[in-house]
Amino acid sequence: MSNKFNYDAIFSKKSSDNPINIVSHAKYDFAVAYPAPETLPMDGLIQSLATAMDTNSEKVSNEMAYYPHILGSVELREFTSQKLRDERGFIVDKDQIVLTNGSGEAIGLVIQALTNPGDIVLAEEFVYMGTLNQFRKFGAEVVGIKIDDKGIIPDLLDKQISDMITSGRKPKYLYTIPEHQNPTGSSLPKSRREEILNIAHKYDLPILEDDCYVDLRYESVPEPAFRALDDSGIVIYVASFSKLLAPGLRLGYFTGPDELIRRSLDFRVGSGPNQFAAIAIDGYLRNNQESHKNNFNPLLKEKYQYMNKSLVENFSDFGAEWSNPEGGCYIWLKMPEGCDISSIRDKVFSDGVGYIAGTNFEADASGRIGHNYARLCFAFESPEKNRDGIKLLADLFKKYRVAN
Amino acid sequence: MSNKFNYDAIFSKKSSDNPINIVSHAKYDFAVAYPAPETLPMDGLIQSLATAMDTNSEKVSNEMAYYPHILGSVELREFTSQKLRDERGFIVDKDQIVLTNGSGEAIGLVIQALTNPGDIVLAEEFVYMGTLNQFRKFGAEVVGIKIDDKGIIPDLLDKQISDMITSGRKPKYLYTIPEHQNPTGSSLPKSRREEILNIAHKYDLPILEDDCYVDLRYESVPEPAFRALDDSGIVIYVASFSKLLAPGLRLGYFTGPDELIRRSLDFRVGSGPNQFAAIAIDGYLRNNQESHKNNFNPLLKEKYQYMNKSLVENFSDFGAEWSNPEGGCYIWLKMPEGCDISSIRDKVFSDGVGYIAGTNFEADASGRIGHNYARLCFAFESPEKNRDGIKLLADLFKKYRVAN
Repeated sequence: MSNKFNYDAIFSKKSSDNPINIVSHAKYDFAVAYPAPETLPMDGLIQSLATAMDTNSEKVSNEMAYYPHILGSVELREFTSQKLRDERGFIVDKDQIVLTNGSGEAIGLVIQALTNPGDIVLAEEFVYMGTLNQFRKFGAEVVGIKIDDKGIIPDLLDKQISDMITSGRKPKYLYTIPEHQNPTGSSLPKSRREEILNIAHKYDLPILEDDCYVDLRYESVPEPAFRALDDSGIVIYVASFSKLLAPGLRLGYFTGPDELIRRSLDFRVGSGPNQFAAIAIDGYLRNNQESHKNNFNPLLKEKYQYMNKSLVENFSDFGAEWSNPEGGCYIWLKMPEGCDISSIRDKVFSDGVGYIAGTNFEADASGRIGHNYARLCFAFESPEKNRDGIKLLADLFKKYRVAN
Repeated sequence: MSNKFNYDAIFSKKSSDNPINIVSHAKYDFAVAYPAPETLPMDGLIQSLATAMDTNSEKVSNEMAYYPHILGSVELREFTSQKLRDERGFIVDKDQIVLTNGSGEAIGLVIQALTNPGDIVLAEEFVYMGTLNQFRKFGAEVVGIKIDDKGIIPDLLDKQISDMITSGRKPKYLYTIPEHQNPTGSSLPKSRREEILNIAHKYDLPILEDDCYVDLRYESVPEPAFRALDDSGIVIYVASFSKLLAPGLRLGYFTGPDELIRRSLDFRVGSGPNQFAAIAIDGYLRNNQESHKNNFNPLLKEKYQYMNKSLVENFSDFGAEWSNPEGGCYIWLKMPEGCDISSIRDKVFSDGVGYIAGTNFEADASGRIGHNYARLCFAFESPEKNRDGIKLLADLFKKYRVAN
């Protein structure tokens, strides 16, 4: 029985032998998409579990002994409903909220409910590659929408959709990250959101709003969510606890019309999300959300400031530009046109600085518009490492002759 | 904007508007598929998290700050590798183990890697409905294999496959729960496993072995896993921590040939499994697995004995038969032929006793062979409730004239 069994005739046609992507980390890791490990409230989360057991061990044990509710923990959905009402200005019942295995599962389920192979979907011309991967996996053709430093430009969006319809290519829906966009860091002003909602209704184009960075604002106040500006059901809202607390908790959520929820859930593989993590998150956030944000976001701001200052000191002479986010995790660095920082990414990584090249975020994967961009995550490393790593990055750009 | 947006033209063709299945519980809940809530080691799991933080808070925080490794926690995969070697007798490296969001995700990923719509798959004629649902979702046609009180009958399996091939319907692979099968409770003897492996090789038929109940044995010793009897790669092995510890932890795993792992993972929606739960499980089981089993399984046996004794006292006169499992969660009750306990299930539930009707487990969904069967879970309720609930069930069967 030691002969190796051959699966060639057995693998499904849809399966593909893609390599497993094991993430490695540079000395200065600006490639990550993570919050600061030193701010993760692990002790508080553990204490919340202990408190839940002390308060009502029978209830907690029973919850853990059942397979989770298909929508996820009732208590955490109640808390989320209150959070959305108080912080994002819209009212949804706990039973209109679906907890998911990270916001990635939420986005994947909604995409499957809305997308036939060959469908055209719209997204910012540079956008989160995890969602782009899911679009491609489920057969969508992604078309990038022009953005500026504030995000989607409504007039251009309208014209682009109109042109597409004229050429028989009506888009199905729009995916957007309006707050502290990934990778650009921009936040879409309220007036643009209102205009985009009008366009959405004009063309019957649902908006899949990914609000996963809204809790990470260290400057000014959040713009109102698309969902808060429109109660018609045209907005599907996705967010996450991963960024605020810890990615390892793997808890996100979405809300939308009842039928969209049903159709999305029908694509879930396995059962509801992790009850153990949900109990910890619920207990922790009910008592500590504000103090946690008051601890977390000033440090995030300091990290941003160190990175920004080092960019001013080391990149101004390069003719580079970069975004000035008011929250989130990312600065979007633009080198002069024709400056290819995508092809030297691996060498720079080996020399100690990790970043994600702009080409990875191209919505239409044209390979034409992202070469001179990089996403720099300022949330993970310390302020001092942000400063020193950016200096090293400047040196490496000179070494590899993309700057001088 | 208060008009309800209409999604009719937008939902994908593959989506379906199935109702959300919210589970409710009868007074005597034998319908569940859960272990005993009073045996869940919640305090121990919480203590394990606290100990991990006390021992190396920086390491734990960093793990939680990263998105989980695509294969899941390194430490828990190391533990699982040791557990499989010591308890199931086969050697797989930690990097050949994939942790998943419950064993349901593991099974769903493997099914997608192996199944084209229209493919024929084999399973025990009565088998876990969660897997049946996934087979149907991904377009497989499930053909049931004849079983007796020990499980699959090799000679009949061989003949059935041979007949199928003759009629141009070659099956693609075989799904089986060899230990404490769900719903029948049977365990497949080693000699049958060896014969079935020979048949598998004869017909190039991979075996998807679902070993999720093996830790719940209160009598005798486990049969060797298919995977321990065959190292060729023809066996794909799935198991879970949900049954041993708590379903709410949502952690299962699978192992198989490298290419099968890659192709399966390519179907994952979202990222790796919950790191928070993985840290708790790893710390707990490394130090407490044996003591936990020594606490858990004797109580499971007592619960089984109470239910079995009550069946002897109350069901013998009905001409009923039932299985005598050496572990797991289920007794499989067979009423005389022609006795329809499927159609009265809802009425009996309302009167206080929950069970899953046999028709739900029919592999081929013929609706013809399951009417006189019920799965009774003895693991969840107390011994006394198992006794009293079975007595009430007998009374209700008389009330609804399916027994006298």
